[in-house]
Amino acid sequence: MTEQYVYFFAQNNAEGNRTMRDTLGGKGANLAEMAGIGLPVPPGFTISTDVCGLYFEAGNKIPPEVEEQILTNLRKLEETSGLTFGDAANPLLVSVRSGAKFSMPGMMDTVLNLGLNDKTVEDLAGKSGGRRFALDCYRRLIQMFSDVVLEVPKKKFEDRLKEKKAELGITNDSEISEDQWKEIVDIFKGIVKQEAGVDFPQDVKEQLFMAVSAVFRSWHNPRAITYRRLNHISDDLGTAVNVQLMVFGNYGETSGTGVGFTRDPATGAKELYGEYLINAQGEDVVAGIRTPSPLKELEGDMPEMFRELKETTTALEKHYGDIQDFEFTIQEEKLYMLQTRSGKRTGQAAVKIAVDLVEEGLTTKEKALMLVEPGSLDQLLHPVFDNEEKSAAEILVKGLAASPGAASGQVVFTAEEAVAWKQEGREVILVREETSPDDIHGMSASQGFLTATGGMTSHAAVVGRQMGKPAVVGCGAIVLNEKDSSFQVGSTVIREGDNISIDGATGEVLLGEIKTRPSEILQVVRGKIRPEDSEIFGYFTKFLSWADEVRRMDVRANADTPEDAEVAFAFGAQGIGLTRTEHMFFDKERLPFIKKMIMSESEDDRRANLDQLLPFQRKDFYELFKAMHGNPVTIRTLDPPLHEFLPKKEELMVEIVELKASGRGDAEKIRELEVVLERVQALSEFNPMLGHRGCRLGVTFPEIIEMQARAIFEAACQLSQEGEKVLPEVMVPLIGGVEELANQKEIIVRIAEELIEQYGVELEYTVGTMIEIPRAAITADQVAREADFFSFGTNDLTQMAFGISRDDGAGFINHYLTHGIWKDDPFMTVDIDGVGELMKWAVEKGRRTRPDLKVGICGVHGGDPRSIFFCHRIGLNYVSCSAYQIPIARLAAAQVTLQERSA
Amino acid sequence: MTEQYVYFFAQNNAEGNRTMRDTLGGKGANLAEMAGIGLPVPPGFTISTDVCGLYFEAGNKIPPEVEEQILTNLRKLEETSGLTFGDAANPLLVSVRSGAKFSMPGMMDTVLNLGLNDKTVEDLAGKSGGRRFALDCYRRLIQMFSDVVLEVPKKKFEDRLKEKKAELGITNDSEISEDQWKEIVDIFKGIVKQEAGVDFPQDVKEQLFMAVSAVFRSWHNPRAITYRRLNHISDDLGTAVNVQLMVFGNYGETSGTGVGFTRDPATGAKELYGEYLINAQGEDVVAGIRTPSPLKELEGDMPEMFRELKETTTALEKHYGDIQDFEFTIQEEKLYMLQTRSGKRTGQAAVKIAVDLVEEGLTTKEKALMLVEPGSLDQLLHPVFDNEEKSAAEILVKGLAASPGAASGQVVFTAEEAVAWKQEGREVILVREETSPDDIHGMSASQGFLTATGGMTSHAAVVGRQMGKPAVVGCGAIVLNEKDSSFQVGSTVIREGDNISIDGATGEVLLGEIKTRPSEILQVVRGKIRPEDSEIFGYFTKFLSWADEVRRMDVRANADTPEDAEVAFAFGAQGIGLTRTEHMFFDKERLPFIKKMIMSESEDDRRANLDQLLPFQRKDFYELFKAMHGNPVTIRTLDPPLHEFLPKKEELMVEIVELKASGRGDAEKIRELEVVLERVQALSEFNPMLGHRGCRLGVTFPEIIEMQARAIFEAACQLSQEGEKVLPEVMVPLIGGVEELANQKEIIVRIAEELIEQYGVELEYTVGTMIEIPRAAITADQVAREADFFSFGTNDLTQMAFGISRDDGAGFINHYLTHGIWKDDPFMTVDIDGVGELMKWAVEKGRRTRPDLKVGICGVHGGDPRSIFFCHRIGLNYVSCSAYQIPIARLAAAQVTLQERSA
Repeated sequence: MTEQYVYFFAQNNAEGNRTMRDTLGGKGANLAEMAGIGLPVPPGFTISTDVCGLYFEAGNKIPPEVEEQILTNLRKLEETSGLTFGDAANPLLVSVRSGAKFSMPGMMDTVLNLGLNDKTVEDLAGKSGGRRFALDCYRRLIQMFSDVVLEVPKKKFEDRLKEKKAELGITNDSEISEDQWKEIVDIFKGIVKQEAGVDFPQDVKEQLFMAVSAVFRSWHNPRAITYRRLNHISDDLGTAVNVQLMVFGNYGETSGTGVGFTRDPATGAKELYGEYLINAQGEDVVAGIRTPSPLKELEGDMPEMFRELKETTTALEKHYGDIQDFEFTIQEEKLYMLQTRSGKRTGQAAVKIAVDLVEEGLTTKEKALMLVEPGSLDQLLHPVFDNEEKSAAEILVKGLAASPGAASGQVVFTAEEAVAWKQEGREVILVREETSPDDIHGMSASQGFLTATGGMTSHAAVVGRQMGKPAVVGCGAIVLNEKDSSFQVGSTVIREGDNISIDGATGEVLLGEIKTRPSEILQVVRGKIRPEDSEIFGYFTKFLSWADEVRRMDVRANADTPEDAEVAFAFGAQGIGLTRTEHMFFDKERLPFIKKMIMSESEDDRRANLDQLLPFQRKDFYELFKAMHGNPVTIRTLDPPLHEFLPKKEELMVEIVELKASGRGDAEKIRELEVVLERVQALSEFNPMLGHRGCRLGVTFPEIIEMQARAIFEAACQLSQEGEKVLPEVMVPLIGGVEELANQKEIIVRIAEELIEQYGVELEYTVGTMIEIPRAAITADQVAREADFFSFGTNDLTQMAFGISRDDGAGFINHYLTHGIWKDDPFMTVDIDGVGELMKWAVEKGRRTRPDLKVGICGVHGGDPRSIFFCHRIGLNYVSCSAYQIPIARLAAAQVTLQERSA
Repeated sequence: MTEQYVYFFAQNNAEGNRTMRDTLGGKGANLAEMAGIGLPVPPGFTISTDVCGLYFEAGNKIPPEVEEQILTNLRKLEETSGLTFGDAANPLLVSVRSGAKFSMPGMMDTVLNLGLNDKTVEDLAGKSGGRRFALDCYRRLIQMFSDVVLEVPKKKFEDRLKEKKAELGITNDSEISEDQWKEIVDIFKGIVKQEAGVDFPQDVKEQLFMAVSAVFRSWHNPRAITYRRLNHISDDLGTAVNVQLMVFGNYGETSGTGVGFTRDPATGAKELYGEYLINAQGEDVVAGIRTPSPLKELEGDMPEMFRELKETTTALEKHYGDIQDFEFTIQEEKLYMLQTRSGKRTGQAAVKIAVDLVEEGLTTKEKALMLVEPGSLDQLLHPVFDNEEKSAAEILVKGLAASPGAASGQVVFTAEEAVAWKQEGREVILVREETSPDDIHGMSASQGFLTATGGMTSHAAVVGRQMGKPAVVGCGAIVLNEKDSSFQVGSTVIREGDNISIDGATGEVLLGEIKTRPSEILQVVRGKIRPEDSEIFGYFTKFLSWADEVRRMDVRANADTPEDAEVAFAFGAQGIGLTRTEHMFFDKERLPFIKKMIMSESEDDRRANLDQLLPFQRKDFYELFKAMHGNPVTIRTLDPPLHEFLPKKEELMVEIVELKASGRGDAEKIRELEVVLERVQALSEFNPMLGHRGCRLGVTFPEIIEMQARAIFEAACQLSQEGEKVLPEVMVPLIGGVEELANQKEIIVRIAEELIEQYGVELEYTVGTMIEIPRAAITADQVAREADFFSFGTNDLTQMAFGISRDDGAGFINHYLTHGIWKDDPFMTVDIDGVGELMKWAVEKGRRTRPDLKVGICGVHGGDPRSIFFCHRIGLNYVSCSAYQIPIARLAAAQVTLQERSA
């Protein structure tokens, strides 16, 4: 018995069903499903995706056994419809459409009205009661067929039609007479002959097989390839081809066509949503020549049809347990369903729909959790533009959409200005070539950031996501002119103080001010709206509580300040997975001490300056612990290279030369700068990412880690004395092997024990390490001898596993992504083959030494759903992400648990 | 039955032998061996190394069962010697010495004359015929015992003795009378009582057990710990203790003591070599109070003793099959052997001795190959200082001994000066803060290099070893003052033109000129001496030919120029494992084109400039292929980031500011510099090591790799047309995964095939890749789909696996090494646990995909013996190292094969 390559479907009689997307494609599977449950679907058949591969293997030929099955199904379709393909009396007309497993809208080809030729067109003319209509269909077929099958550009036909209308002095297609359409059909046939060198085929079976072949070929057209690349769809899947009885929405005033959703995809409101046109074909709705009407008006136009549509789609929604996006055609007051699929929706709608579906009994909590794309929750946490104002605004330029949300404000070019202007009550957008840790205070004072360089994981992008502020980065078209305090895009100059708006979800930079609406969820979290006054907050909370019931991994936050920690706690963080202690040093009050500490000539001098920093750090930790209410707080010891705290070398050099040349500078000032320059030069590194930082600082300057350990445990002991629960986890960064960890741990434990004894408290604490150096992952069995926990620093791990600096890679990474060399940016989603393998080894080897080893992740990947799935699969105990990504992580962690259960 | 912890030895009666170094330590095993084969060894026993561990486990106590075995052996010793321990009539006196598995000279403690007390000293006085002698022995015991066992500093005794002599108006010990010695013994006993709070023990067994305990404890003294750390000796091994009958070389004029070698350890000449003293103890030879005589003079002094010594040591050499380093004592015309071990020797001696031993029938070729330390061959390839002149010169400062050899010359501070001065016929030493690829021409013109920063794998170090020139690097005490053209060490100022000398084998920098003697081997290789005129060259060649018979791995050279290739070929390279094509670009003629290429605004512009470079590259490759006579030549495509070819950012910035301020610069010049600066800034990277370099250049600018492929295959095809054999292997650098390799390979193969067809030749070639990014190693199974060969770039692999930049790490790496956090510098010797694991995976996974995958190494580790051993063990096909390391690699590859066979 030969394999089945073609699957028939007709109302209550379908060989396929919705589970067969691999074989039938999305469209084919849903047509079969709808037909199978008795919905009014025009009959037809689906040629399976397997044939796509066979077609290419056979050298772009449909294999004979498939041809045979197609003909068999064609006969079945003739029987079902009572029509005959190519018969002058009762001709069967069909559409031929592509349909891959994953929707690729508009990427592949479609031919309608197939089966028309010089003879059958006459029958259609007779039946439809309009020769004009039939001829219009025919010329459309010629045009579409030639474009798709014979590669004669559509434009050739359109131009000729335009010419013809000009000759006739006609502007509107509807004014073209029957005879004129006949003439146009002949002209079109002439174009085919001239351009393709063949006659338009009158043999309808030839038409069919040529069209099917063309649809298969369209799988490899450049735009389809690009689309797949961008959407991570494998080239191997292939497309199915759906051959289906034509129905005509343009059959007259009792016909029509439309598209819709079973609920409002923007808000989630439970009402039919969509639009339709009377006496029109699907393409007319899209073409925009006529303005379609809102779907609810169909109730007035065709009440019976509206009722039937509503019943049908409600049944569909119930059947699928999810909001449906459908297409329908009405031919002479008969409803046909042409497509259904899960409806795309906004994050807000997704949450509301998921909860409503459960409460309406249409689905289960577990299934509802799978209905929301984790990343879409982000939309609920950011301000959004007023839609009307935004569509009126001029788009200046587009950059990378690095941190979602909408922001409007006046342009400033330095962090200092941002702070100053903010204090005057102005809202600002900070525009920089690239931001650095020095800019943190300015970023904190801004509504959003715009940078000319840097990628999705540049400083501005990471800080944006962490602070929950919009950022557009890597906007290469921007030319900054810092001296003039302006920037330029083409000939447009934007000066300091000018208003711009940025949309961090799209990457758009718009001219002028656009009103924004703050996130309602955030308003609640920040205490500006009472929870009970926000409907969406209620939905959000309920939905995530279901996720919490399911998930196995804990979710923690990366938080550097008590404020961050409070937001994180409000979002459901079960602890802090990463506190970057150095971020505390950039504060204006503290920076002088850290600078002095670095300039110290001796250890004593350094210790003296560290003593000045101790009270600040202690206070930070005290408040952080307090904000987390006894949940674990992971504190990372000092990580960045010391020169990050000093001025830049070239700036100092230029300043000195300028001072000397101008004669302004007194000798003392110059000498002072020269001393700083010397230290900066001594500390300067060719590759600071691979330099003297992380635990290497703590090992070579133990007094630094001593101060930090002291600050941590004084704070913890104090709180403990006050009767609060505290759970500090001290984390050593950038170890390459167990030796460094042992060295640092000895210091931390010594000081902890000293202080615990001194305060006379009982205090639980752990000491662990980042796994962010490949060697640490490789030797994890050794490292685990000293580590109570591991936390994957996937930013550095990715940098080092790939040998690529995030800061420098943007240019060629973009090239790699757009040229399909890489499918994903490994700085956004864990690279499973390389970095992921290291992580897997580290977990396995680590637990071989210490079976109860706690393992988490605190790199940016901790907030990326696909990476979270991976973390679950390799057995991590928790993920840690920015406060604003906690909802995403809670949901993603639940989804992967559910996937696992169903696998 | 209890375990044996104590092993007895006496002439023709020994419980141990030389294979038992683990148990008996080196000294104990050799004493047992000598005694066992009937040589005159004073009887005694060895307490095994296992007891050392037991001693510490028991809380610094000798376990009872060991104590028992010691007493049993003491009785046996009494029987053998006919003496009784502690007996006033016939007292047994013993020495107690440490002896670990590996020699740790002077690191642990020794006590002589044990068994003396107030009573036994009198018997010794009677027997020796001199109470003075006996009392001197006694006071030495008190002093040594107190120092070693009771921790009373030796100095206390020495000072008191000095005082006493001053009181007596005596300068020489020999003037001290018998009674005065008696008084001194009492004074010494007083010191013990006062300082240690106990009496000097009169119970001789107490003396013995206290001394044995002290020797065990000395295993953990700080200098022993440091020594083990520096020499990679495990702390777990422990030391043995040797208790042996005392013999006295200071028993009168018919007694004496000496040390010697069976051959000259400096030249390998076959003659007894060493020195001796009549009427003296071993410590007197070392102490330097009396000048010992050359050993051959013993023939005149004591002809019978000389004959016996010669016979004994010749037998020893024959027995051991290697040059022996021995100690002997003559007591009253009786010879005793006290120690023997393999003699340390120079590289030159090692080779000569190894060959001679084989030719004398004393050992086999295989055993002879194991007698030479591979690294010591380096000594044969470098100029050496005239010994006398060197010892007269003043050492200015010491840095890291980065590339061996001796050089003298005038100080210059820039590469340009080096070239100019060299052209004037002067010999120069280039002194730089740190060298860079820009300095290559200047380095090539210098005798050697001295840098203030950088580690053992810094640019200067690597280039030094590659060029075979001495380099002293990381000499932090040097303060460069480039403006004054001088440098300073403390208060000494060295100016341009001053003569200095550097010893790259010791790191010494010496003032003034010191005569050097060139390497004879190199003179032959360079055609300045005929091979048949050099004895050592003959030895060298023969010895290495034995290595070639044995080794499994091939040895190739890293060579960038035809000259390098010729030297490599002369040293026996079986191909080139790495040609760095970019080194060809730094040439004066070519740099302008590469600069223009980088400044190009468009691809066309870039192609035009690349076309200019093509003929240069083609010529390079043509000559390289020719120099290798049909052996494989691996050519790496462009690797460094483009900004390496442009001026430095800060230099440009300062130049512009200065030009502007001075009013000198015309606007055009300033504008020109600003354009360059813009490009430099656009190319500038925070972490160039992790930036846009390696295949990332070739992927984003395919025209670069196209030009290089064209140059390679035009050269190869041309030679092939000329009837020469050529075997190009094109190597793609810095891939992170198979996708990049596939991209580059497609271009290379396309151009190769085009040219092969065009030239109408048959040409074998392969395309492979560096494995230098951790991810490439991890995904080696995928990479091998596209790679004909792998070559480990262990420099980058180490950098990225550790997350440490070679250029920046020197500071903390030194800290890690000196503080024992690391045992080895991973940039010198492959880190087996981390980087090695990656290599192992890559080999295994790569061969899983492609069983015949050829795998080599071309990082600096390819010239390091321990790393070569590792490469053999994981199944590499070849190692590639600098031309001057090829002899080392040939020998190391042979040794590991022999080790494997015997395992």
